[in-house]
Amino acid sequence: MAQDLPQLLIIHPPLSLIHIESQLSRKFHLLGAWESELPLDKFLTTYARSVQAMLSSPITRVNADLLRLLPGLKLVATPTAGVNNIDLVECRQRGISVTTSGSAFSEDVADIAVGLLIDVQSKSQQQIGGKRVGIVGLGKIGSEVAKRLEAFGCIVSYNSRRKKQALPYLFYSNVHELAANTDALIICCALTDQTRHMINKEELVRCLVHGEIGGAGLDVFENEPHVPQELFALDNVFLSPHKAALTPESFERSNRIVIANLEAFFSNKPSITPFNG
Amino acid sequence: MAQDLPQLLIIHPPLSLIHIESQLSRKFHLLGAWESELPLDKFLTTYARSVQAMLSSPITRVNADLLRLLPGLKLVATPTAGVNNIDLVECRQRGISVTTSGSAFSEDVADIAVGLLIDVQSKSQQQIGGKRVGIVGLGKIGSEVAKRLEAFGCIVSYNSRRKKQALPYLFYSNVHELAANTDALIICCALTDQTRHMINKEELVRCLVHGEIGGAGLDVFENEPHVPQELFALDNVFLSPHKAALTPESFERSNRIVIANLEAFFSNKPSITPFNG
Repeated sequence: MAQDLPQLLIIHPPLSLIHIESQLSRKFHLLGAWESELPLDKFLTTYARSVQAMLSSPITRVNADLLRLLPGLKLVATPTAGVNNIDLVECRQRGISVTTSGSAFSEDVADIAVGLLIDVQSKSQQQIGGKRVGIVGLGKIGSEVAKRLEAFGCIVSYNSRRKKQALPYLFYSNVHELAANTDALIICCALTDQTRHMINKEELVRCLVHGEIGGAGLDVFENEPHVPQELFALDNVFLSPHKAALTPESFERSNRIVIANLEAFFSNKPSITPFNG
Repeated sequence: MAQDLPQLLIIHPPLSLIHIESQLSRKFHLLGAWESELPLDKFLTTYARSVQAMLSSPITRVNADLLRLLPGLKLVATPTAGVNNIDLVECRQRGISVTTSGSAFSEDVADIAVGLLIDVQSKSQQQIGGKRVGIVGLGKIGSEVAKRLEAFGCIVSYNSRRKKQALPYLFYSNVHELAANTDALIICCALTDQTRHMINKEELVRCLVHGEIGGAGLDVFENEPHVPQELFALDNVFLSPHKAALTPESFERSNRIVIANLEAFFSNKPSITPFNG
């Protein structure tokens, strides 16, 4: 009986749920708040006070208000790479673990980043080989981007919180210095309080309109699905609808990781892909 | 005096002439047929009967009719990679050397080919990593494409006139067999009588419309600037206006090679980049 399985809270269904719902429901007793007629706080206090694990979605705001209603929570598993919807400080204070999709999406996202770079360079008839490309954030995605750029003959440098001793690329501790010393920038960092508005929209559009920046390729926007209208008018801008990661293979990897993290949690084993910020 | 310099015949000005005309005219006595009011045959018999070297352009048809009017010709230098406008058999019979732009454009063209692949795969939400990609023609461009695809985690195989022993990719002697064993094909071969219509337009469009092919990225068309209208209606087709090679850096490389080939010829030295078909 489902009631005998460990409980898994899902407030909003993540995009990939459709692919794993049947698999999840064989292993867990799913508490789907979005399917209930009760208001969320009522649903949580009625059904989920004792829940230990939650599968989050990018639109679920896992903040202090929510966590206060879930005193038993010990794990937030998100099927995404980003954790910008999760209050990590609050989770840490409450002893709640956060797991992500790890590198499930990294290669596909890197492919699209490089594709956008080629589109932009090609539009402005710029050769890619020999160009100095700066990567902001040399994590999993940034490293995959760097690997590809090397094959194109680019000179790769990067900015990151820490210098990565094992990697041969030139490190800049300051993102402005990186920008000043490169022909193109690729932003691969996670969205955090520190990185939010690192690139200012008004400044970006102004630079593009005045030709101070030769072009831009964008897959992610601040207020999706809204995209700043000014960008559509610029023919040196390539827009992609935040879909870099949406391949069936990426989803499959992410789904396997979500399930592995949940099973590890309920077996008292370490997380497969803990968030380490 | 220009008259003392070696003669160089130019029937139609190649795109890059504007960048090297002054440099060429310091070294050669330029005979510009396109600037003359005389009809071409008259111009050639009047001014160019004794000319030994010619700078060709993609629109100059270097065929038997033309060569008959140029009995002294010993060199056709083309600033392009393609030689489909040149009757190579006729040149060989007349002992005329043909030089090309060598690999001046190869890296830029490879970049765009990979960019189109990413566009097409991304449009259909297909992962690139792990995909089997077949390269038709593993010459200079094909090899650069292969190098880039390896960084994306693709499994590269190829069809070519000859197996390249030094390269690690799987060889198919038959292009249909290559197509049957790969997820995507990239056409990198030269246009010759053997390769013309290897991909049939009607067949290509039919396959795209019926979803038998997931998508296509095209930078070159048979009757440029005309592009088959059916292609514009297909949202799984990415079109680029034969501009893959048009970066300033590629032109500069090509110009240097043209001049080096001409200088080598007039100093009785071997060509820098002879065409070897």
